[in-house]
Amino acid sequence: MPFQYNEFYNEQTGLTIGIKKQLFHEQTPFQTVEVFETDTWGNLMTIDGMVMLSEKDEFVYHEMMAHVPLLTHPNPEKVLIIGGGDGGTAREVLKHPGVKHVDMVEIDEAVVRASKLHMPEVGDFSNPKLNVVYENGLEFVNGPVKEYDVIIIDGSDPVGPAVDLFKKDFYEKCHTCLKDDGVLVSQTESPFVESYHDSIRSVQNAISSLFPVAKLFLTYIPLYPTGMWSMSIASKQRDPLSDEVLSEIEKRTASFSESLKYYNKDVHHGAFALPGFVRQIFS
Amino acid sequence: MPFQYNEFYNEQTGLTIGIKKQLFHEQTPFQTVEVFETDTWGNLMTIDGMVMLSEKDEFVYHEMMAHVPLLTHPNPEKVLIIGGGDGGTAREVLKHPGVKHVDMVEIDEAVVRASKLHMPEVGDFSNPKLNVVYENGLEFVNGPVKEYDVIIIDGSDPVGPAVDLFKKDFYEKCHTCLKDDGVLVSQTESPFVESYHDSIRSVQNAISSLFPVAKLFLTYIPLYPTGMWSMSIASKQRDPLSDEVLSEIEKRTASFSESLKYYNKDVHHGAFALPGFVRQIFS
Repeated sequence: MPFQYNEFYNEQTGLTIGIKKQLFHEQTPFQTVEVFETDTWGNLMTIDGMVMLSEKDEFVYHEMMAHVPLLTHPNPEKVLIIGGGDGGTAREVLKHPGVKHVDMVEIDEAVVRASKLHMPEVGDFSNPKLNVVYENGLEFVNGPVKEYDVIIIDGSDPVGPAVDLFKKDFYEKCHTCLKDDGVLVSQTESPFVESYHDSIRSVQNAISSLFPVAKLFLTYIPLYPTGMWSMSIASKQRDPLSDEVLSEIEKRTASFSESLKYYNKDVHHGAFALPGFVRQIFS
Repeated sequence: MPFQYNEFYNEQTGLTIGIKKQLFHEQTPFQTVEVFETDTWGNLMTIDGMVMLSEKDEFVYHEMMAHVPLLTHPNPEKVLIIGGGDGGTAREVLKHPGVKHVDMVEIDEAVVRASKLHMPEVGDFSNPKLNVVYENGLEFVNGPVKEYDVIIIDGSDPVGPAVDLFKKDFYEKCHTCLKDDGVLVSQTESPFVESYHDSIRSVQNAISSLFPVAKLFLTYIPLYPTGMWSMSIASKQRDPLSDEVLSEIEKRTASFSESLKYYNKDVHHGAFALPGFVRQIFS
């Protein structure tokens, strides 16, 4: 292969991906945003040298980040996405016919620009229900009170601008932004990487103290370190594993189930099955 | 890092692991067996350049390969392991108090020797219930008739000596070796890698035509390509997802549950939740 992209998730273990050429490189006020063309994974976006998504594997992350919380909520109409500038999470959210409005608060407009230019199938930016705001998510959540049904925290790793997305203060503000039956989800890194355990614990402790329902679920992501990724979910009312939630999944996804490559009722349920070593991280 | 170990699972994507030194290298009549010392993963064994296991991640693979089929069987006493020369699968099988005898048929004694020398915690080779036979698994299964309760096919990837472990003829012989309530499991590669789809389909088609119960399940393995690995299970009687199986798991693992880092009742059930793209490979 002519070039290699290497990401080391600790000093000793990494992922190597052959790249054909670099399509985008910008040092923004916040971070370094890059897009590479690859043979195997389509176009690949990295931020500060860490893989964010590829065109070929993004369906897993975006389906799980959107549909697990939206199906947990009884009737989501207004959704807030913090981060998610590539547009993939919003695309999945907007598949739900009942969703009327999505605010996507992305700190870095270069991420949106890079996605529109080089990953045109990932986002659904022309959808009139989508409102893109270029602002710091931490500041945005100071304003709204009981405004959103679902909040999806689709930030990058807990370094750089995303570090505060793993702290309790932020989750307190999100709790205030959510209506009385609101649901929140946040990506919380890989349980196989010990240096991420503090992030998982921090988010789980924060949401457990604020919400009556707080859980961790897992999904396979081939281009994220170790392939196992965790997401944390918190709910003011419904439990994602309750019979009322599980019994509605097939009906509520029927209008778009043909487009789903990962999420289904079994996967929704199975994602909450935690290996012993994962349970021990935060129990 | 002073040295790197690189495994490319297709021409374009690979895993890179920093190694301190090589501990074992032998070109056997069958394959190249190597062990490396690493900082992050303990000692790491490769065969023909492909990661087989590390001391730090082997618990996942071995717990799932052993406990899912043994719990599916009502009362396993005699178990056959094809391959598995590192000893980890046998170690997990031997945790079940009811197991009286394990035949481990490994084609290459160098794998056992390397494991004993450089991964002493992985195997339980001094256990008097374990009988190690150095023979070709394909020939071994020509003999026994209705002798085993469980067969575990713990082979390497479908290249080199393990290629026939993915063919129907082999599963017919295994079927004959199994008693009337016998259960079989086989590792069947990563569903995220398209070049493996033929292997998954081949095994699923073979076991579906031979056994009344045939299913695929998934597990996270951080050092295998993409982190998602599939295993195929076939049973002459009990379904691994039946109430009778699920209701017994906690009781039957109670005597060794403290030693388990991955497997539990939730994981047993959740592992069978297949994403849509995985279902499509063999349906």
